[in-house]
Amino acid sequence: AAPLNLSYKIHIATENNFPTAAGLASSAAGYACLVSALARLYGVEGELSEVARRGSGSACRSMLGGFVQWQRGERPDGRDSLAHQVAPETHWPELRVLVLVVSGEKKQVGSTAGMQTSVDTSPLLKHRAEAVVPERLALMMRHIRERDFEGFGQLAMRDSNQFHATCLDTFPPIFYLNDLSRHIIALAHRFNAHHGRTKVPVSRPPRPVPPPVAHTLHAGPNAVIFTLADTVAEFVEVVRRSFPPAANGDQFVRGLPVGAASLPEELLAAVVPEPVPGAVRYILHTK
Amino acid sequence: AAPLNLSYKIHIATENNFPTAAGLASSAAGYACLVSALARLYGVEGELSEVARRGSGSACRSMLGGFVQWQRGERPDGRDSLAHQVAPETHWPELRVLVLVVSGEKKQVGSTAGMQTSVDTSPLLKHRAEAVVPERLALMMRHIRERDFEGFGQLAMRDSNQFHATCLDTFPPIFYLNDLSRHIIALAHRFNAHHGRTKVPVSRPPRPVPPPVAHTLHAGPNAVIFTLADTVAEFVEVVRRSFPPAANGDQFVRGLPVGAASLPEELLAAVVPEPVPGAVRYILHTK
Repeated sequence: AAPLNLSYKIHIATENNFPTAAGLASSAAGYACLVSALARLYGVEGELSEVARRGSGSACRSMLGGFVQWQRGERPDGRDSLAHQVAPETHWPELRVLVLVVSGEKKQVGSTAGMQTSVDTSPLLKHRAEAVVPERLALMMRHIRERDFEGFGQLAMRDSNQFHATCLDTFPPIFYLNDLSRHIIALAHRFNAHHGRTKVPVSRPPRPVPPPVAHTLHAGPNAVIFTLADTVAEFVEVVRRSFPPAANGDQFVRGLPVGAASLPEELLAAVVPEPVPGAVRYILHTK
Repeated sequence: AAPLNLSYKIHIATENNFPTAAGLASSAAGYACLVSALARLYGVEGELSEVARRGSGSACRSMLGGFVQWQRGERPDGRDSLAHQVAPETHWPELRVLVLVVSGEKKQVGSTAGMQTSVDTSPLLKHRAEAVVPERLALMMRHIRERDFEGFGQLAMRDSNQFHATCLDTFPPIFYLNDLSRHIIALAHRFNAHHGRTKVPVSRPPRPVPPPVAHTLHAGPNAVIFTLADTVAEFVEVVRRSFPPAANGDQFVRGLPVGAASLPEELLAAVVPEPVPGAVRYILHTK
């Protein structure tokens, strides 16, 4: 269809198939979608990530597929704060994402307001931004290029923890993690420990099968687990046994199909000590 | 009595009137007591804080009364890592401590082992030790010398939060705070907000009455609240209404006597939204 004239008025109706304002980047997805749809409708071409960024900073990232870096930029007006693709979505086909949706509750503090308070009050955030992030960013790009899941996973976990540390260093403190988040983090560490990967390796041991999982939690209690395709079924079963679903048992796993897995007794004993029924609402399996 | 000859063998029996291994410095109290008692028994004189420090680092602080600084020292063997008194216990007679004992559970990770893992893995702890603590230490001494409760309280809260931030930045992460700790921290902030003291003051407003409270949480979920004498009764009543005691209602407040206080309706509405019965086991009121 030919592009609309810009003078045309439109009615916008949006729908989210994700929990909103729960630390799952719903505003990024929403603004990226809005900008893409409007650009196509009106025939706007050119750099759209800068436009999306005005709605919600992280929306610029969501304009591209695969692995995307959001560059801070140098200009005071922020116009060079853009996203670019580090690797396309075909680069690491075995990488999987499991979103553990624990609660549809709204965040205590919105991300943008929270970030501003952190910038104003947290000495640790200043140090993180100046001294820690640049080095970690370069390291993360290398792990992605080399498809090094162990390096990728450990750095993802450490950086997620450090983000939450700076929230706690904010005054008044911001808590995005709750007891259930801690429970899920501990579950991932027990799972990895069982597969012999707890410690920071001094010399790199030969890669065992299956590889471990990596947790990352954003501005909310929902947990995102990175893992490789051949670990998905086993870890999903661990989550199901740890948080037995209440009523919606058949919709507990959504997204890409997940195979069946039966857990060895010693894994169950080591990793799933005491089930908490209903605590995880559902798991979204995606790439 | 004359001192015992060092060849005498002794039987040691100890008892704690505090929860053990719950982030309330029970090992510091225990070792300080042991060293004092043995020194008196055997007639040992001289610098005992260095001896106490060998049992548990923080025990050197507990050898002295009042406000005590534990100096890091410079020597590799640690023999100049000693405590000294900043001000005697008579310096600030209005200052009060309320210990909210929430659970006798053992810590997930002992403080000494946890600290070592943090030193090994947390980039934020390194920055905190090098760049943040020296400045804050000097500031805290000034607040104590000047009996500036507002400065003292805010710095105590921020530094407590930053300690927990470095625990979270440790890998694997250490969590000493749980949902109840967060609940108590939020309660203190609401109480202060109600008394008009939420924000970091840009210019210092005239001091209102009553002054605010300050939370600090150590290596466990129990909370320590600093406040001034004329706020104790009101805040204790706020805690009682927020966490109505179960069976032991008459032993809910221990230590120094606490007067009765009735809470204005608007304070109740603003500060005590939803009571959680039984969550706080008891309050210890001390100086």
